Amino acid sequence: MAFLKVVPLEEALKVINSFSLKPKIEEIKLEEALGRVLAEDIESPMDVPPFDRSTVDGYAVKSKDTWGAGETNPVKLKVVGEINAGDMPKIELKDGESAYISTGAPLPKGADAVIPFEEVDRENEWVVIYKPVYPDYGVMKAGADVPKGKLLLKKGTKLSFKETALLSAVGFEKVKVFAKPKVAVISTGNEIILPGKDLKYGQIYDINGRAISDAIRELGGEAYFLGIARDDRESLKEKILEGLKYDMIILSGGASGGIRDLTASIIEELGEIKVHGIAIQPGKPTIIGLIEGKPIFGLPGYPTSCLTNFTLLVAPLIKKLLGQSQEYRKVKKKLAHKVFSVKGRRQFLPVRIEDDKAVPILKGSGAVTSFIDADGFIEVPENVEILDEGEEVEVILFGV
Amino acid sequence: MAFLKVVPLEEALKVINSFSLKPKIEEIKLEEALGRVLAEDIESPMDVPPFDRSTVDGYAVKSKDTWGAGETNPVKLKVVGEINAGDMPKIELKDGESAYISTGAPLPKGADAVIPFEEVDRENEWVVIYKPVYPDYGVMKAGADVPKGKLLLKKGTKLSFKETALLSAVGFEKVKVFAKPKVAVISTGNEIILPGKDLKYGQIYDINGRAISDAIRELGGEAYFLGIARDDRESLKEKILEGLKYDMIILSGGASGGIRDLTASIIEELGEIKVHGIAIQPGKPTIIGLIEGKPIFGLPGYPTSCLTNFTLLVAPLIKKLLGQSQEYRKVKKKLAHKVFSVKGRRQFLPVRIEDDKAVPILKGSGAVTSFIDADGFIEVPENVEILDEGEEVEVILFGV
Repeated sequence: MAFLKVVPLEEALKVINSFSLKPKIEEIKLEEALGRVLAEDIESPMDVPPFDRSTVDGYAVKSKDTWGAGETNPVKLKVVGEINAGDMPKIELKDGESAYISTGAPLPKGADAVIPFEEVDRENEWVVIYKPVYPDYGVMKAGADVPKGKLLLKKGTKLSFKETALLSAVGFEKVKVFAKPKVAVISTGNEIILPGKDLKYGQIYDINGRAISDAIRELGGEAYFLGIARDDRESLKEKILEGLKYDMIILSGGASGGIRDLTASIIEELGEIKVHGIAIQPGKPTIIGLIEGKPIFGLPGYPTSCLTNFTLLVAPLIKKLLGQSQEYRKVKKKLAHKVFSVKGRRQFLPVRIEDDKAVPILKGSGAVTSFIDADGFIEVPENVEILDEGEEVEVILFGV
Repeated sequence: MAFLKVVPLEEALKVINSFSLKPKIEEIKLEEALGRVLAEDIESPMDVPPFDRSTVDGYAVKSKDTWGAGETNPVKLKVVGEINAGDMPKIELKDGESAYISTGAPLPKGADAVIPFEEVDRENEWVVIYKPVYPDYGVMKAGADVPKGKLLLKKGTKLSFKETALLSAVGFEKVKVFAKPKVAVISTGNEIILPGKDLKYGQIYDINGRAISDAIRELGGEAYFLGIARDDRESLKEKILEGLKYDMIILSGGASGGIRDLTASIIEELGEIKVHGIAIQPGKPTIIGLIEGKPIFGLPGYPTSCLTNFTLLVAPLIKKLLGQSQEYRKVKKKLAHKVFSVKGRRQFLPVRIEDDKAVPILKGSGAVTSFIDADGFIEVPENVEILDEGEEVEVILFGV
């Protein structure tokens, strides 16, 4: 069995950060970019709109031609043409001339304003104007919306429908995003079986495999659930070797301690153990290793413990590979009731969020429902025994 | 051109709700269920754990055998076997007997407590116990976590990693979810071209097609972007006929009014116009029709107007088809500065959310950036001309 390298959380995070894994970049079609993470700053390659554009249906004019207009002394301008949206205007207005123009159409040369048709009268080939307009009336100038060169989106942005629409607006057909980190997920334990199979006495259905796989997907990674390794060397080693096809491997322990020793021993055989135990509760049995440059994590078996350690250790690495900040996502809440901890133990307690309150969940880490009810967890530092009701706490949200 | 059936928003929503479109249900594998919407209430088909389960590594005992134990007069019990996680225990404890048991393993018959190995001594085939334990010490009883028959998840729940994990824990290999509504999306206008193509003078890149398609995906629907219809009858009709392969069709207008008339006329030819104009701003030009039982929406061309009407009218229908509440998602904020409206006009103004403030965006609906900056919109009722700074407003969030 491996030497127990119990380290503080911060030390474990340093080890993880020192891994040489780098974000990978790929270029994909914009229509597949929803939910992906930008790998480059985006500056607008063009003016939006790209030309002086009419914002109304009406008449393009030289504004100075209207400056003498009034209700009793209207100005009449000759209508010399018509420009529709999508047209390339071929006409050029001379003094005293106008052109019918539709919303979205480019202004003809010589024009600097558009008067909505509701504000004028039309008399055969003449438009009758009753009030003066200023330059750019009814016009959106080229680049007024988005000027060429403007920084639109930053590297690391997760693309929602608003960002994909913006990229479309400035002409991107393809976009560079971070490749999804590929993560192998393995559950371990003789008592664990996959849902859909018949449950024999003494067996329980897998929960961590599904939880971790889907949490990885929510983070933006690609999860490959390799199923369940039995509590024997051959079975576990086979799964780990299969996992080396991916960028990293996450094991979650069965309930027993035997698996932990086995995992440690196989990592030592194939690679190197970097951390064996973290000085937090839960997290004491967590193993971090490196095999052929691929990080391998052995997380605790209890669902809440497993997910807490996933959130503390693995999620930041996945976010790093996606070019994002590795900060935990935290919210400040008030503790709903007093909690006790053990002095000398740095503890993370699951909590549920209710409005502005963090409600501690005290079902014990074995309970599936404590995992389901919890939104995240709070830290009780080593030197603290009691957190009082109403105290402000920072909740680290699960998964993200 | 069709008769202009301008109706209040509520009337338009009633029309949409009267459409005979029904949610469809499909059964899928749990591993593909992340992000999907449950089509059934889920009651637990089993107890979790399914058996009385040890929560520690230690010794299974009859608790009554320990009741006389003390530091100076320990009780010695004979260790008659070993039970590991996943084992089907074959032994049955008699008085004075114990068995070594690992975490997660089922208790043998006769045992009702487990003492952690750290709390006892082992002497050959004997375990030495220094303190009494009560029944269920170190044991999680069958069903203590999730009792059989408990309502776990409600129909309409969008499945996150926590819910998929819970479903796995109670043995679901497959799950019934609402089928994704299939929505055809068409952009229209001679001036609109797809990103990646060369922009000629007078043209702009599509924004609504991408925005609406990806907003539909975020809602849980399936979007089919059919591209851009030119401003002529044949082109538009061809796209609409293609769109009838899907559950509904969403058109967004080019800038010009001509497209609107054309859309109305084609809907009248192929089906029926139900609403032509809604008494809101923006939304006046919105068309709602029905062709062969398929709803068809003609939304305004300006991105912010288009998205506002999508949120008000189309999103609730998509959510209905996903078995979800059709309520708008709203947050209460304080208005960051005074806004003016026109009396007699029911207006929706785009706002950006900053902490507890709603900041009105006054760039005009033509601006792409007003769409990007906005998180949603607020309503200014018909009889209101001014909303004051600091006033509480309800922000309807875009898309959802």
